[in-house]
Amino acid sequence: MLSHEHYMRLALQEAEKAAQADEVPVGAIIVMQDKIIAKGYNQVQLLNDATAHAEILALTSGFQNVGSKYLPEATLYVTIEPCVMCAGALYWSKIAEIVYGASDEKNGYRKCCSQMPFHPKTKIHNGILESECAQIMKDFFKQKRSSI
Amino acid sequence: MLSHEHYMRLALQEAEKAAQADEVPVGAIIVMQDKIIAKGYNQVQLLNDATAHAEILALTSGFQNVGSKYLPEATLYVTIEPCVMCAGALYWSKIAEIVYGASDEKNGYRKCCSQMPFHPKTKIHNGILESECAQIMKDFFKQKRSSI
Repeated sequence: MLSHEHYMRLALQEAEKAAQADEVPVGAIIVMQDKIIAKGYNQVQLLNDATAHAEILALTSGFQNVGSKYLPEATLYVTIEPCVMCAGALYWSKIAEIVYGASDEKNGYRKCCSQMPFHPKTKIHNGILESECAQIMKDFFKQKRSSI
Repeated sequence: MLSHEHYMRLALQEAEKAAQADEVPVGAIIVMQDKIIAKGYNQVQLLNDATAHAEILALTSGFQNVGSKYLPEATLYVTIEPCVMCAGALYWSKIAEIVYGASDEKNGYRKCCSQMPFHPKTKIHNGILESECAQIMKDFFKQKRSSI
């Protein structure tokens, strides 16, 4: 089995695609039995859709790929702590495991949710490649501010 | 301006379409300047996608219709209290107003969110056609149980 760091690097590659498309750089991948079943990066601007977060796009792609509306044997890797919407989507997916890189104090699910929003069986890990995942966001917003 | 009850009846018609398609009967519509800009009903089974809730489908349709990723002048009517995922999606949409019919003690956002998950400017109303909105759900699950 490949390491969390290996898959988080692939999620970071997705985040990099978002950055290059001038989107907030968050990337996600979904892995099942050591196989990547879905990828996604934030496409809010491109799709003109406030719900087009990396996790939502990856989940929808994963459901289609597997032909199931649940992913109880899969792990989602995402570069940043999921927001409330994505946490709720992950709840419905019954995903086995969520691994995220950097925390998001402003928009992360922990800001709002008093109790764990995920399915009781879902395991949570964080801090994987934390500094790289946070840095790509910092670089993006720094560049945004300097271009105003 | 037409009443909340008028629009909630249209959301109930969407919920009825869901029931007829053997989906959990939740319906939503989005109204802007007294014009319906989007409709949606739960299509989790049809789309094989655990995130295909009435509100999410209506929001995505509304964004496309208006050509904007925000809906700060719109009102969403939904028959049942939004779940955490839908509450998060509504936050990102910056929608002006959310009107829902019946509460959902099991899956509603209030179960999990310690603080209001919506945008600070979003107004919330509930209890519009509450008994009809609750009844269509009760009928659906009663039928499901009897057919097992």
